Amino acid sequence: MNKLISFIWSIVLLLCLTFVSKAQQSTKLIYTDARELTMIGKAEKGKMFFHRLDTSAHKAIPGVVKSLATNSAGLAISFITNSSSISAKWCTSKQATANNMTGIAYEGMDLYIKRDGRWQYGGVARPVSHDCSEAMIVENMMPGEKECLLFLPTYDEVLSLSVGVDQGAELRPGTNPFKKQILVYGSSIVQGASASRPGLAYPAKLSRESGYNFINLGFSGNAKLEASVADMIAAMPMDAIILDCVPNPSPEELLARTNYLISTIRRSHPKIPIVCIQSVAREKGNFDKVVAARVALKDKYFKQEVNKLQKQDKDLYLIEADGLLGKDQEGTTDGIHPNDLGFDRMLQKIKPRILKILKRYRI
Amino acid sequence: MNKLISFIWSIVLLLCLTFVSKAQQSTKLIYTDARELTMIGKAEKGKMFFHRLDTSAHKAIPGVVKSLATNSAGLAISFITNSSSISAKWCTSKQATANNMTGIAYEGMDLYIKRDGRWQYGGVARPVSHDCSEAMIVENMMPGEKECLLFLPTYDEVLSLSVGVDQGAELRPGTNPFKKQILVYGSSIVQGASASRPGLAYPAKLSRESGYNFINLGFSGNAKLEASVADMIAAMPMDAIILDCVPNPSPEELLARTNYLISTIRRSHPKIPIVCIQSVAREKGNFDKVVAARVALKDKYFKQEVNKLQKQDKDLYLIEADGLLGKDQEGTTDGIHPNDLGFDRMLQKIKPRILKILKRYRI
Repeated sequence: MNKLISFIWSIVLLLCLTFVSKAQQSTKLIYTDARELTMIGKAEKGKMFFHRLDTSAHKAIPGVVKSLATNSAGLAISFITNSSSISAKWCTSKQATANNMTGIAYEGMDLYIKRDGRWQYGGVARPVSHDCSEAMIVENMMPGEKECLLFLPTYDEVLSLSVGVDQGAELRPGTNPFKKQILVYGSSIVQGASASRPGLAYPAKLSRESGYNFINLGFSGNAKLEASVADMIAAMPMDAIILDCVPNPSPEELLARTNYLISTIRRSHPKIPIVCIQSVAREKGNFDKVVAARVALKDKYFKQEVNKLQKQDKDLYLIEADGLLGKDQEGTTDGIHPNDLGFDRMLQKIKPRILKILKRYRI
Repeated sequence: MNKLISFIWSIVLLLCLTFVSKAQQSTKLIYTDARELTMIGKAEKGKMFFHRLDTSAHKAIPGVVKSLATNSAGLAISFITNSSSISAKWCTSKQATANNMTGIAYEGMDLYIKRDGRWQYGGVARPVSHDCSEAMIVENMMPGEKECLLFLPTYDEVLSLSVGVDQGAELRPGTNPFKKQILVYGSSIVQGASASRPGLAYPAKLSRESGYNFINLGFSGNAKLEASVADMIAAMPMDAIILDCVPNPSPEELLARTNYLISTIRRSHPKIPIVCIQSVAREKGNFDKVVAARVALKDKYFKQEVNKLQKQDKDLYLIEADGLLGKDQEGTTDGIHPNDLGFDRMLQKIKPRILKILKRYRI
């Protein structure tokens, strides 16, 4: 008898919720330009709202780095709403998704909502074309105010974005929930390949899990330690800097440029911690002995250059790469870029190290 | 002085390897039609080499299931070669990649090579178009014979495939390295969404890690427990069957069809273990209360129906879904489909349960 009553209640509840859902679907959605909300995750303010850098202010950096700086990796829109649903309309460049990424990561978005003191997955904005899309991210939410972060595409340039809420619901800019400024300079792995959605790129995950503001300066295939980029980074007001930049340069470039990169940053920032990470990209060398030797040589050169500087620099740290992705070679999408499992394993190793360093400096 | 010698040796080694690599690149590749090699992962033999099922032999199953049975999820080509490189030329349908998957998973391939008694990641075949592609999967390998498994696209129909090796190298069919026949019937999650490459779909990973032959009968969005599909599965000669089929049917369909599915299989297989799994797809309901209620109701109905049958069936098992993807909601790509982190967590929970059951039956 109890089972029958419980069964009937389940049906009634489902019917009610379905009815609420249908009613909500017919609620008109009101869209607000994201430029009226709060953008977080930038290294510096600039006149291009959706770009990571104002490239007109950095004339010396290579053209390809400027182009990648238009990708919105690590940027997120902070807002507060009491709406029961959240949707998005957005346009990106016409560029198609790379074969080692999902469309959601490359040119879509994901939403996090703070609940019980923790940033929790809320939904995804799936791209329905390579340029403009509209998507319902989450609906049928409980009443009440929600603090939201909408992570923007990691590999495309956002041309426009509007956030939709129920007619009559409040939508207002949020604050930046993350403290301090910690720059992460690196390759495609920093930019977010091959996390399955933007919020799973490792700097974004580090921010949510630690409360620090990790800023994504990952430049896919082009984190080559150029002097102009070193000069640009050195001029940025940062509390700590992470250099995860071994994967892209050749061994010779790495040998020639590591000292300049670190020394230049150190001159502008005499006291901040600088944390260097060896190349996580190594599974392609599991059977390819040329790749394995190349990665080993780059790691060796990087370590050697960092070690030299460490002799006079007690605030310079090195995290070695061995075992960062686990031991089973299942942590990448393509032998180079960590998948979500690889990123999770990597964070389990580097997060405590980084947080311990930040704590030591009372950051 | 020792450091200088070690440095010079590193340079010499890299130059040698680069030279070998360049020489290998100019080695002519000889392609062999995959139909001359060994196909593994099928539930039954059939005249369509690259299809999971010979759909002409299963006239009663729904058209959409027939269509999905042409996708090569879970199929792999087994071969042995002493080549230093392995490449592929293949054609799939013109279908574009879904936004919650990578191109590599959807219409590309990945290679595993057995080393030290373990299947290890060898490389990926990246699709360069939505129809025909050619890709170098791995090169610069050490001499010697390699036992290989090339996992085919999880979401596309393969129209042709040739495997390339160095001119003069041997290439011959392998054997099926996996024992017994364990069918996994389910949704897109079984088919492989959203693993980042084909070999990370969970039945494939289970096979490599356990040595059992887990057969992928995942039908994206269409594992709806239809009577015709139940009849088809029941007729297949299997040593165990896993039913991970809660995500697709409506609660009503699940309530109406679970008994028929299980009873029909049981009549044909009086003694084999049948393992039922509740819905792993639940993060979309983290904030959406309609989705949460729907998933909970389906899990409840499924459990209820399985529990009823368990009263007279001691070989029927249920794995409950709670916590299968972890507790942080970071284990999916889109709130529905596990990403590689989610699959890893899921396997850590279900693999020991499944292996214990198989052991009990001396399978």
